[in-house]
Amino acid sequence: MTGRRIKLTLGYDGTAYAGWQRQKNGPSVQETIEAALDRLFHEGTKIVGSGRTDAGVHAHAQVAAFTLKHPIPCDSLLLALNSNLPDDIRIYRAEEVNADFHPQFQAKQKTYRYRFYEGDVLPTQLRLYTVQVLPGVDWDKVEEALPLIEGTHDFACCCASGSVASETVRTIFAAKLLREEEGEGIYTLELTGNGFLYNMVRILAGTLLEIGRDRLPAEALREALLDGERSKLGATAPAKGLELWKVEYPEND
Amino acid sequence: MTGRRIKLTLGYDGTAYAGWQRQKNGPSVQETIEAALDRLFHEGTKIVGSGRTDAGVHAHAQVAAFTLKHPIPCDSLLLALNSNLPDDIRIYRAEEVNADFHPQFQAKQKTYRYRFYEGDVLPTQLRLYTVQVLPGVDWDKVEEALPLIEGTHDFACCCASGSVASETVRTIFAAKLLREEEGEGIYTLELTGNGFLYNMVRILAGTLLEIGRDRLPAEALREALLDGERSKLGATAPAKGLELWKVEYPEND
Repeated sequence: MTGRRIKLTLGYDGTAYAGWQRQKNGPSVQETIEAALDRLFHEGTKIVGSGRTDAGVHAHAQVAAFTLKHPIPCDSLLLALNSNLPDDIRIYRAEEVNADFHPQFQAKQKTYRYRFYEGDVLPTQLRLYTVQVLPGVDWDKVEEALPLIEGTHDFACCCASGSVASETVRTIFAAKLLREEEGEGIYTLELTGNGFLYNMVRILAGTLLEIGRDRLPAEALREALLDGERSKLGATAPAKGLELWKVEYPEND
Repeated sequence: MTGRRIKLTLGYDGTAYAGWQRQKNGPSVQETIEAALDRLFHEGTKIVGSGRTDAGVHAHAQVAAFTLKHPIPCDSLLLALNSNLPDDIRIYRAEEVNADFHPQFQAKQKTYRYRFYEGDVLPTQLRLYTVQVLPGVDWDKVEEALPLIEGTHDFACCCASGSVASETVRTIFAAKLLREEEGEGIYTLELTGNGFLYNMVRILAGTLLEIGRDRLPAEALREALLDGERSKLGATAPAKGLELWKVEYPEND
């Protein structure tokens, strides 16, 4: 289809959605945006994202793109789209890019954050975006295990069973534990890599938590990355703690 | 009624509630907790809070009290209550206190926070707890006006019309602007005082914003505090930006 290629940078609260991608068991972020575009421009526009996010997973800055014939200026497009979207999906930036821009294939790196709250009771204003863990986690131990993840590995062990990724090698450029967020008790795992497998961050988050609780030795993570055995790792951590933080591209982010 | 006097420290997300106090036009936080207590103990327990919060206003740490005949230990009470409450209301602490403890009359000081987000588009994960203002606020000017509020004043001008407070003199111990919160663009007004009138923080927040926008001189606030004229001040800022931050008592907080 000919037309202008538009890049969107957007956020969403995944609580009410069955994930990014259009599917049968509930509203998706993708179809909600496509419906808004259709109400505005009647072009049957399809959008493509930098990657899927699961049901309940949030986005601080997802990137998506579509092709539009309508000549509306980008700043007006941003206003029109936000007026036609529920407030748990917001477009932060709309810009015209090269006709061949593909948000998934051209992504240089992605960053995900996973937020834990360590305490007896989960504060109400954190409940939608944070997973509670009971006191007694050795966060220094979690931090010490992070270098095991960094680098290029076959992450087959960190891939949900039943997923169909044909190539499971990924490079993690940085794995960090952020402790400086406002409010005591919040621990944020931040992973930046060239790509992530289905459930990979949630399996790593669940595994690191078990390491911090001394229920799993860090050695198990080292072994699983070598032999690909999912069973050596911890449980998949809940979706609501996960947020697609940013997606970066060679030219402009 | 004889029994043990229990003090609760609790948080809530006010989004789904018609306020703290039991009323006809929607569920209140108070009746939700009373219903949970009734399911557990069948004593027809009535609870009293440190003060009302309006529809849509949040609490980081509200304080409430009630009298209970049942001998359940406080830590079990906390677990039982949280199991019987929706996750937008959480009890953080339950403790036995003197039989005459009254959370409103004995409060030494209260702190409220009001959160603004300055930017073109309100980020999705801030939308429930933050009020968006368009760029162009001079926050230094807002900060310079804060000393006008501090001290003992007749806050009749900051009182919603139709409210029935017979005594409108209050003392504000501290009025601050917090800029250090994570995330650029968040500005938090924090007021600590010996008491607050109905809508007082929201009228002050709306007024300070207009001062920061140069739509109102700080002098108008000074005058209104002397002559009691509500019309000299700015609009009442929206409920969702407001949070009852803490309530402090002479003995223990």
